[in-house]
Amino acid sequence: MRQSQLFGKTLREDPKDEVAVNAKLLERGGFVYKSMAGVYEYLPLGFRVLENINRIIREEIGAIGGQEIFLSALQPRERWERTGRWKKLDDIMYQFKDHSGRDVGLAVTHEEVVAEIAGRFISSYKDLPVFIFQIQGKFRDEPRAKSGVLRGREFLMKDLYSFHRDTDDLNRFYARADKAYQRIFKRCGLDAYVTEASGGTFTKEFTHEYQVLTAAGEDLIFYCTGCRYAQNREISTIREGDACPKCGGKVASGKAVEVGNIFRLGTKFSEDFGVLFSDEHGDKKPAVMGSYGIGPGRVLGTIVETHADGRGILWPDETAPFTAHLIEIKSKDVKVRRAAEKLYEDMTKARHSMARSDF
Amino acid sequence: MRQSQLFGKTLREDPKDEVAVNAKLLERGGFVYKSMAGVYEYLPLGFRVLENINRIIREEIGAIGGQEIFLSALQPRERWERTGRWKKLDDIMYQFKDHSGRDVGLAVTHEEVVAEIAGRFISSYKDLPVFIFQIQGKFRDEPRAKSGVLRGREFLMKDLYSFHRDTDDLNRFYARADKAYQRIFKRCGLDAYVTEASGGTFTKEFTHEYQVLTAAGEDLIFYCTGCRYAQNREISTIREGDACPKCGGKVASGKAVEVGNIFRLGTKFSEDFGVLFSDEHGDKKPAVMGSYGIGPGRVLGTIVETHADGRGILWPDETAPFTAHLIEIKSKDVKVRRAAEKLYEDMTKARHSMARSDF
Repeated sequence: MRQSQLFGKTLREDPKDEVAVNAKLLERGGFVYKSMAGVYEYLPLGFRVLENINRIIREEIGAIGGQEIFLSALQPRERWERTGRWKKLDDIMYQFKDHSGRDVGLAVTHEEVVAEIAGRFISSYKDLPVFIFQIQGKFRDEPRAKSGVLRGREFLMKDLYSFHRDTDDLNRFYARADKAYQRIFKRCGLDAYVTEASGGTFTKEFTHEYQVLTAAGEDLIFYCTGCRYAQNREISTIREGDACPKCGGKVASGKAVEVGNIFRLGTKFSEDFGVLFSDEHGDKKPAVMGSYGIGPGRVLGTIVETHADGRGILWPDETAPFTAHLIEIKSKDVKVRRAAEKLYEDMTKARHSMARSDF
Repeated sequence: MRQSQLFGKTLREDPKDEVAVNAKLLERGGFVYKSMAGVYEYLPLGFRVLENINRIIREEIGAIGGQEIFLSALQPRERWERTGRWKKLDDIMYQFKDHSGRDVGLAVTHEEVVAEIAGRFISSYKDLPVFIFQIQGKFRDEPRAKSGVLRGREFLMKDLYSFHRDTDDLNRFYARADKAYQRIFKRCGLDAYVTEASGGTFTKEFTHEYQVLTAAGEDLIFYCTGCRYAQNREISTIREGDACPKCGGKVASGKAVEVGNIFRLGTKFSEDFGVLFSDEHGDKKPAVMGSYGIGPGRVLGTIVETHADGRGILWPDETAPFTAHLIEIKSKDVKVRRAAEKLYEDMTKARHSMARSDF
């Protein structure tokens, strides 16, 4: 398309109320518009990048068997009471009454509804495993939202959920999901460390976070500069300068952004929502669940934080909003304009997506 | 893909709490899951149909110059005070306080934010016209939500907004949008009547609704059985049995679902948000705005209402979740299974998307 027709202009100066590098560059470049702290609107340029990231995610999650669904943000309170998370998450979940006086909330995550739906459709071991995912908005009432698109009050999330007959089957899929995640971040131009983190109350085993080193990060990780073994500070047993317990290499530390995570949830949600299946012997068992998240907007922001120089953002190939930018050299010679027009038409016909300055 | 792996099963009986035909069939067929009145979750089959509809919309709106954006649901109260709609829409808009005590709402529509953004980027006649659209969730606290996916409390909306230097330019685009809408509904297998309706407080001219005849409709239209001229009951000057004022043909009436509309908004929002441009003489003028909506979920529901028989839903070609369904004839002969497997592999390789019963 012609740049003259593109909606969104570059700004001459940094926006006054932003501290995050990603927000400054994305707003100045006409990629996003800030509505309020933590709430950003994607303009055509930003939307193209976001869709490129989403396409990569869909391809890789589809390749490991993920089936796409689309869930609602509105949540009835009763559903969240079943897991005890209506109260537990009430400091970050938007909760309010509708006009009929019913308590509803906006989804901060979708384990509850996914387990509720799975309970309807899973009854036999033959129904397992199940892999379903969506790319959909989430809401989180962050007290401080100063990190641009890295931490929003409303943000897109790719969330994948899996159900299995046993932990072995979960672990097999968990390993496949890990590989898919590594491919996704690599294609997005991100150098993500697969970082051990706490499984919280759900599992004694580690969960894994995908951490990208950048000064904009809110996490701190310890990582081996040799084999890339990494631990989140919260659980770390190694410190900067230590010898890596895996390979003997040197351990360093750095601030990092978590662009994704994979999580073994065990049977907590399956028990709360009755996701039970009969095995070959007719015994009823709760399905073993996993969940796997990536924030496409946070990926976009992390690309900006790690791929910008003094002149602006350098998008990795697969994420760039356009692949070519044709600029006509200013000249009074009509031949120049004709040649530029011809090039533009040829490239458009060749199905290259491209932008063009018209001046 | 193999049907045995598809998430979502058919139910033997109609869901008890549904009255709408579309909800009964979509839930029985495993296309959607009902979370609460007016809130439906799209399962893999339903999502595939929804994406097919969205793809058609993106192609046709892209063809008339629409640039895709992606806006937030969360809305600051101050923005809606500027148009007086915080109070005016408070009976259907979800409005609540965030944890810091700030009033926020969920978008029932996006004219306000679009005008606010346009105000930043439009300053000269050279910046016009502008055509931007999104496919994104909307929220509406419907007092009664008994029409399945036809009228949801949370629903997808394709909303297109245009800004012009004058009414003539708006009218030219309005005519192009009308043609694009007719192509969209035709490709979705819907026979939509372009129906005159009131322009409300915005314009003395008509707005146009795209109405599909069905007993499930909440609107009533009067239409010519000859030239298809149609009026919404609210403004109609013709009655059943009248001669059509356009062609002399016979006027009939029927209940109908509004699957889309196109609307001249004039300068109301541009004035409220300062979307002003300088013309060739340096005079400042407010941009003339139009808005154009289609509900992809409502389109899906209307297809079901108008394309079902006693055996279930008959999806129009371009909207069908799969193009072929391969079913193996039950046999003890191993050749039958081998032939079915071979066919499945050949068709998959041929890039046909297909489902297969495994039994």
